[in-house]
Amino acid sequence: MTFNFDQNIDRRGSHCSKWDSMEKLYGVSPDDGLAMWTADSDYPTAPCVLDALRAAADHGIFGYTNTFPDYLNAVQWWMQTRHSWQIDTDWILTTQGLGNAIALSLDVWSNPGDGVVVFSPVYHEFRHKTERAGRRLTECPLKLEGDTYVVDLDDAQSRLKGDEKILIWCSPQNPTGRVWTADELRAVADFATRNDLLLISDEIHHDLIYPGQTFVPMHVAAPEAQDRMVILTAASKTFNIAGQRTGNMIIPDAKLRAAMNKRLTVLDYKPAALSLMMITAAYSPDGAAWVDAQIDHLIGNRAVFDAAINAIPGVRSLPLQGTYLAWVDFSGTGMSFEEFDTRIRKSARIAPSAGPSFGAGGESFERFNLAMSRAQIVEAGERLQKAFADLQ
Amino acid sequence: MTFNFDQNIDRRGSHCSKWDSMEKLYGVSPDDGLAMWTADSDYPTAPCVLDALRAAADHGIFGYTNTFPDYLNAVQWWMQTRHSWQIDTDWILTTQGLGNAIALSLDVWSNPGDGVVVFSPVYHEFRHKTERAGRRLTECPLKLEGDTYVVDLDDAQSRLKGDEKILIWCSPQNPTGRVWTADELRAVADFATRNDLLLISDEIHHDLIYPGQTFVPMHVAAPEAQDRMVILTAASKTFNIAGQRTGNMIIPDAKLRAAMNKRLTVLDYKPAALSLMMITAAYSPDGAAWVDAQIDHLIGNRAVFDAAINAIPGVRSLPLQGTYLAWVDFSGTGMSFEEFDTRIRKSARIAPSAGPSFGAGGESFERFNLAMSRAQIVEAGERLQKAFADLQ
Repeated sequence: MTFNFDQNIDRRGSHCSKWDSMEKLYGVSPDDGLAMWTADSDYPTAPCVLDALRAAADHGIFGYTNTFPDYLNAVQWWMQTRHSWQIDTDWILTTQGLGNAIALSLDVWSNPGDGVVVFSPVYHEFRHKTERAGRRLTECPLKLEGDTYVVDLDDAQSRLKGDEKILIWCSPQNPTGRVWTADELRAVADFATRNDLLLISDEIHHDLIYPGQTFVPMHVAAPEAQDRMVILTAASKTFNIAGQRTGNMIIPDAKLRAAMNKRLTVLDYKPAALSLMMITAAYSPDGAAWVDAQIDHLIGNRAVFDAAINAIPGVRSLPLQGTYLAWVDFSGTGMSFEEFDTRIRKSARIAPSAGPSFGAGGESFERFNLAMSRAQIVEAGERLQKAFADLQ
Repeated sequence: MTFNFDQNIDRRGSHCSKWDSMEKLYGVSPDDGLAMWTADSDYPTAPCVLDALRAAADHGIFGYTNTFPDYLNAVQWWMQTRHSWQIDTDWILTTQGLGNAIALSLDVWSNPGDGVVVFSPVYHEFRHKTERAGRRLTECPLKLEGDTYVVDLDDAQSRLKGDEKILIWCSPQNPTGRVWTADELRAVADFATRNDLLLISDEIHHDLIYPGQTFVPMHVAAPEAQDRMVILTAASKTFNIAGQRTGNMIIPDAKLRAAMNKRLTVLDYKPAALSLMMITAAYSPDGAAWVDAQIDHLIGNRAVFDAAINAIPGVRSLPLQGTYLAWVDFSGTGMSFEEFDTRIRKSARIAPSAGPSFGAGGESFERFNLAMSRAQIVEAGERLQKAFADLQ
């Protein structure tokens, strides 16, 4: 079966954040601009997911639901089949997406004023969730060695204030595209253990891994730390269903799990039936075949984008190991963030995610979302070359 | 346009609580039993809702969403058109269903140990939510005068302990089927004001009202108390979409609204896109025509059911003013709850909701859900007559 990731679907007016909020937030019109910020895809989800949705419409009844063993089994199957990760179905707690899962984790496992450790540059919502919950951020910079970000745990140790309760880890890493090795993951888990931190591992990008890399779940790398481990996974990036607001907390430890389960019960949180049906359909052999095809598409997009942007003097797209989010360094241009960002928005009419929004270390960067049609990637490359043509 | 509420759709194996949990909870097999407990419907939702779902499947992209002004406008239009209630769209906060809305209200507006007032018999989740949140229930019985339940506020006043912070009110009332008059509602709002209680008015059954009755929103009856008022509405009962877990808190007061909005933001709660699209389609002229047809169907079901059950000596179905939930008194049979309940479950092979689960005043009652096909209602009546044939 072949799949088409090159349809150029018009998302304007579809309640879509990426295209419909672009002009307001970036001053880039969706009529001739390219939306490369929000981390969702511009191609439709897998046909098997849409088939499930149509089948639900044919049934027509959306009353109260009981358990979804097929959903739990599908999640288990996916982790085993795609990630060689053996989980029990009763480890799975389903939340209203992973932002909600992080917020609930802060609520259950920390108190106002407590410290939360992150390694930056990193997904900006880690910071926002922490600050909104009245917790304090301890930002530890990743170290850029050549083209590769690494963790500097000695440096991190020196930055701790002693009031930290939680470490929010991102694997594969957004925005740097790092796919961490098992050794690196074990070192991070040891760091969490040494400092008595709850280790939240956000693994939402785990399915989109490029050839030559192997994604290792934190729980596979460091099972000895599972009594402090909460792993976050979702089908939202992989299958482009973030708007359905559903994600999993996979919690191997019974005591941690009971604490979160109690909070979910008190708040009367249960996932929407259609979301569960869609994910059940996604986590299947048909869904897997579609993901494989998507990765092939992204390999091509990455190659086209990198070739175009690396041809601009002073600009380099770091080699992406995972995710569809290119992390591009403009420091070699000698321009300030404002200068290159203005060129990108005003001249190339492209809206990327601003590097500084990901925290310390992001000052000279932009993040470009490559999950679109090949034609759009080609167009983006041409526009960026033109916007920086004077550097040639 | 005509609609068909008589399709007898087999819900077994569809993750449906009402049919698939029946044997475990009631000892009634779904193969030959009749599920009349959970308050959802056995007929499909409105065609316009299913059309919206199919259109979403055709679009195929379910990425991050921004605002849904069309949803907010549809809710506003529905309240104006169906309930003569003028609301501002910015009063609407959307939660993960009304159970979640009640739980969040307890979380935001009361503290552990505080008292919560309910008038019983009433929807059992008011009690469960209160107890799970570690609050204390003050149960004030409704008074049954002839066939009609009324509120006895003098009695209620005498039951208050002084630590009550919240009153959870149900209108139309589940399980008694009362549609309250404006005078009754004003008296309840005055009671809340006198006792400085937050007034949560759960109006989820507001659309299913029988001829001769007029539903009045609490906010229309007692606008002077709006600074302590949270009104809960949802399309879930009306359109049989409870499994989509989406409901509205309508909060006219800016200060109350800001407090809840802050909690929703900290917890990163945003509704699922498909749920909002379904409700937007439901709250429309096409949806309204379908609801009118549903009410006609329920009028017929109520007549058939009441005629059958009132023919049993000692049994009376109270005249239902609203909701599809028949409230049936078995006290005239002289039997204990266990005796008549066993006959209903074992002999008639029907699973109703047990009266005692609704609190004080429900001891001699059962609640029967009439939202099914006419043929099933006829069958239920015949089975019940047979199960109590010795009383003839």
